[in-house]
Amino acid sequence: MTQPAPLMDLSAEQKDRLDKQMEFLREVDKLKGVLRASRLLDNSRFENSAEHSWHIMLYAAVLGEHAGPDVDLSRVLRMLLIHDIVEIDAGDAPIHGNVDHAAMALKEAAAADRLFNLLPADQARDFRALWDEFEAAESPDAQFAKAIDRTQPPIGNLYSGGGSWNTYHVTMDQLDTRVGTPINRGAPVLWAWLRPLLAGYFAKR
Amino acid sequence: MTQPAPLMDLSAEQKDRLDKQMEFLREVDKLKGVLRASRLLDNSRFENSAEHSWHIMLYAAVLGEHAGPDVDLSRVLRMLLIHDIVEIDAGDAPIHGNVDHAAMALKEAAAADRLFNLLPADQARDFRALWDEFEAAESPDAQFAKAIDRTQPPIGNLYSGGGSWNTYHVTMDQLDTRVGTPINRGAPVLWAWLRPLLAGYFAKR
Repeated sequence: MTQPAPLMDLSAEQKDRLDKQMEFLREVDKLKGVLRASRLLDNSRFENSAEHSWHIMLYAAVLGEHAGPDVDLSRVLRMLLIHDIVEIDAGDAPIHGNVDHAAMALKEAAAADRLFNLLPADQARDFRALWDEFEAAESPDAQFAKAIDRTQPPIGNLYSGGGSWNTYHVTMDQLDTRVGTPINRGAPVLWAWLRPLLAGYFAKR
Repeated sequence: MTQPAPLMDLSAEQKDRLDKQMEFLREVDKLKGVLRASRLLDNSRFENSAEHSWHIMLYAAVLGEHAGPDVDLSRVLRMLLIHDIVEIDAGDAPIHGNVDHAAMALKEAAAADRLFNLLPADQARDFRALWDEFEAAESPDAQFAKAIDRTQPPIGNLYSGGGSWNTYHVTMDQLDTRVGTPINRGAPVLWAWLRPLLAGYFAKR
């Protein structure tokens, strides 16, 4: 067998870290099997949480110019990269579904304990802190990340004939509260663009 | 209808930029329908290029410590975020398939022209430059991004019973060339971890 170049030597510590990192990266493959209430824009099937995570990272990269000056876009991208991993154990909680939020928060915290702790301890702490910051939705980075996470699903519903709004009999009032509030907090420009489209759609239903 | 807060006013320029940005973000939804030769680790179905993009971004975030000191991880993440968008028009070219690389490069360049130009002109230029840099695989950031992009599929094949290696009758020699060379160039630590696993698998076939 030819080999492209001599293999470098791994230290025992490097190998141990890589074993843990690769185990985590293997486990998170399951996020591709977690289905959301939203559908692809061509209406062919439900969206899964892994491809949703990719899509909203692209939203953040494209729409980053509409964030406040105190937002660090590279931290936002890392938050969005990991924000849904807990759904591997806890499942997706549809924003318009009848969800027990306290029970869900406990399930998600247990999922974060199990999943992030597959990583080397220092990385587990970093990832957990970033996920906690996203969930708390208090820092500028987390508020922009939340606004982006709330922006993509209604746009998908607009383009695909209603989507999860039909499933859950959603009204414009509910959208103003559940979607408008977090978007307006983290990215008011996006809500100013989006709300007229939503109001137009609901006025015609 | 209640409204969470007064809508801010959008300038005509903001609205025009948002219209273009949202059109791009709508079009790229199609990447969720581009299927790759690789499968999910549970072997349930083929992987699509959107969820693959999410997964390798997580690879990059977790494995970034194994990059050289001249690698800017936030640029790597942005490269990986957009690296496969051209497949919406050009399709996925399986690394072990019988691909006409010159023809594929032309198709991908035409796809990049069409897709990135949905964005406002300044953003279209930035995204295109980043994609060109990834494709050229010369800068330290692009070489690490390429190494990550080459690392995930063989790990998936190892875990799912051979996957696309079976489809394309791949040998260890081919892996050394097509996978080992770019991984070793951008992230030699990863190849030192991965190659013994691959060699062990192929020795038992």
